[in-house]
Amino acid sequence: MSKSRLEAFTDGVMAIIVTILVLEIPEPKGTTFGALWPLRYKLILYLLSFLTVTVYWNNHHHLFQITKTISGGVLWANNFFLLTISLMPIATAWAGSHTEYAAPEATMGIVFLAVNISFYILVKTLLAAHKPDSVFTKFFGQGSRKSWFSMGMALGGIILAFIWPPFSAIFCFGCLVPWIVPDHRVDRYLKKQQ
Amino acid sequence: MSKSRLEAFTDGVMAIIVTILVLEIPEPKGTTFGALWPLRYKLILYLLSFLTVTVYWNNHHHLFQITKTISGGVLWANNFFLLTISLMPIATAWAGSHTEYAAPEATMGIVFLAVNISFYILVKTLLAAHKPDSVFTKFFGQGSRKSWFSMGMALGGIILAFIWPPFSAIFCFGCLVPWIVPDHRVDRYLKKQQ
Amino acid sequence: MSKSRLEAFTDGVMAIIVTILVLEIPEPKGTTFGALWPLRYKLILYLLSFLTVTVYWNNHHHLFQITKTISGGVLWANNFFLLTISLMPIATAWAGSHTEYAAPEATMGIVFLAVNISFYILVKTLLAAHKPDSVFTKFFGQGSRKSWFSMGMALGGIILAFIWPPFSAIFCFGCLVPWIVPDHRVDRYLKKQQ
Amino acid sequence: MSKSRLEAFTDGVMAIIVTILVLEIPEPKGTTFGALWPLRYKLILYLLSFLTVTVYWNNHHHLFQITKTISGGVLWANNFFLLTISLMPIATAWAGSHTEYAAPEATMGIVFLAVNISFYILVKTLLAAHKPDSVFTKFFGQGSRKSWFSMGMALGGIILAFIWPPFSAIFCFGCLVPWIVPDHRVDRYLKKQQ
Repeated sequence: MSKSRLEAFTDGVMAIIVTILVLEIPEPKGTTFGALWPLRYKLILYLLSFLTVTVYWNNHHHLFQITKTISGGVLWANNFFLLTISLMPIATAWAGSHTEYAAPEATMGIVFLAVNISFYILVKTLLAAHKPDSVFTKFFGQGSRKSWFSMGMALGGIILAFIWPPFSAIFCFGCLVPWIVPDHRVDRYLKKQQ
Repeated sequence: MSKSRLEAFTDGVMAIIVTILVLEIPEPKGTTFGALWPLRYKLILYLLSFLTVTVYWNNHHHLFQITKTISGGVLWANNFFLLTISLMPIATAWAGSHTEYAAPEATMGIVFLAVNISFYILVKTLLAAHKPDSVFTKFFGQGSRKSWFSMGMALGGIILAFIWPPFSAIFCFGCLVPWIVPDHRVDRYLKKQQ
Repeated sequence: MSKSRLEAFTDGVMAIIVTILVLEIPEPKGTTFGALWPLRYKLILYLLSFLTVTVYWNNHHHLFQITKTISGGVLWANNFFLLTISLMPIATAWAGSHTEYAAPEATMGIVFLAVNISFYILVKTLLAAHKPDSVFTKFFGQGSRKSWFSMGMALGGIILAFIWPPFSAIFCFGCLVPWIVPDHRVDRYLKKQQ
Repeated sequence: MSKSRLEAFTDGVMAIIVTILVLEIPEPKGTTFGALWPLRYKLILYLLSFLTVTVYWNNHHHLFQITKTISGGVLWANNFFLLTISLMPIATAWAGSHTEYAAPEATMGIVFLAVNISFYILVKTLLAAHKPDSVFTKFFGQGSRKSWFSMGMALGGIILAFIWPPFSAIFCFGCLVPWIVPDHRVDRYLKKQQ
């Protein structure tokens, strides 16, 4: 089954998700730089949401660069991933405007955890669709330490939300760190293929 | 005629349709988990709408995987399908917030029926564009029991809306069940082709 | 220069334009079929706008099916076409809710005229980018009677808006008629190529 | 690494950015041409924003037409470019409705500067991903005078905002001028390749 439409649909949905929060930045009311001040949270949240979604987009991109075959299961795993990541902007927005409270921070943590779980499931479903001797299995078959690290961080963020809320966000966004640079081995492999 | 742009346009439109309802989930007002409670309907409706649209996207994907040729008629049948499915989010939203009333439930049933009819017409138009000995005709030429089942379920949902409204939704979403797993034979055929 | 990205960007923009008016249909207020009544205009306008934009999309699709080469000028002509068609939903919405008044009807006529002019310019720019013996020139080089007909109809719609406004819309949407079935010759040619 | 998905994601995001301001044009209130008058700023701002974003889209298109290979760094440089250009509509909107004030004009200048810097970084990252003897390096390796000119113009616009605000916009949009016609050499090269 061809992967090109799954990629196109994913790109379309993620393009919308990534721009949801920019649509919510209103025109500043006033004519001084002070008029930008009330928008500072919305701007920062847009940056964070943009960063988060593009980090996952980059990794999705790398994942499918070496994907050779997909299955009905992969379609559904990908849809589930899109569903979880589509909740990211609103969760980030709520947590960002209430950094001192447990519920918004914990909710953001839960969404981060869900995104990481769904990405993990996506990788596993892709593994099942590939033969054991495929390039994909070679790169992603040995388990994904990144995924376990991120799920742990998100879980830590959820727990911390009830103890010291502002610290929770650091754990949540911390789970992005290993994903900022997508898989080096994939990069190197693709460079050799040229 | 190349099918790639029809797929791209469909992906673009469906990416927007699938995210319409997430745009309507507002930032929770408050700082407790209780603030999420008033959003429960919108969240559930988003899930249902997301599920519904992605079910049809998956099947559209399978349908066009083995499509070899399209015609002017296919373009129009596809546009009609996009029109009907674009009414899904609003119909689901209305029905979902008024599960005890006939009109919203029946309206959702009518939209489900329209989507199934337009998908059926799309398959028929594709059949007309393919030669009788094509792979497409082999798979989709013998009539689509799924389509008839779904149309019957949607029709049942419309009638039930006037008798016992909450039961109507079960029939409507029931018509998705056979489509959740897209055509196995297509999957198997595509796997062999690799 | 490859045409694929021009097509992809056009598909993305037109997918948004086609769904602009569905975003404006609010959830019906009430629990009876009567609650749909106040939405009748918005629904009809959505249908008209959807039809209009998809008619042009279909023709854009046919046009680029036999396009072999594009130029910097084609990029700009296409952008201009996208700009004019992006004003269609709002013009249709205004005219549709005030069918008895000259200004809204004439404005819609002006937008229809602008869309037809920009499509005509797009065809001319594509002709300039193709060699005189190309397939594209063979099909689109002899002038486009459809375009002249449509521009005349739109112009008639503008004039009529000041005499008998409701009749104006008939002329505007009348200019779509010859475009509903895209070029037959292109269809036949592409069928032979298979 | 294949460039096709980067292009698709960019097209999706830019299709949304380019239509953000058309979504904000409300249906005219009234039935005379006078009803269009209060919308004049929104219409002009939409035109300016559309022009600005499509100028960059056209240049992005040319840039990637001769791109042969991308890297993880290119993905991030492209995301940064998308982030800066996504702030263009709102900056244009603010500056456009307050042409006599320093802050809105200077803010627009800062966004123009940021877009030009991010585009410059994108070119540099692409250069790093290509071999010194590649076609890409041949065309874009000798430094981009256009970029320096535009950055200078934007910087001038920022400074002028504090001296004579309305003049600032001329400098900002002036920085688009050299980009309206994308690289001629690329055009000519691609024509030869056919």
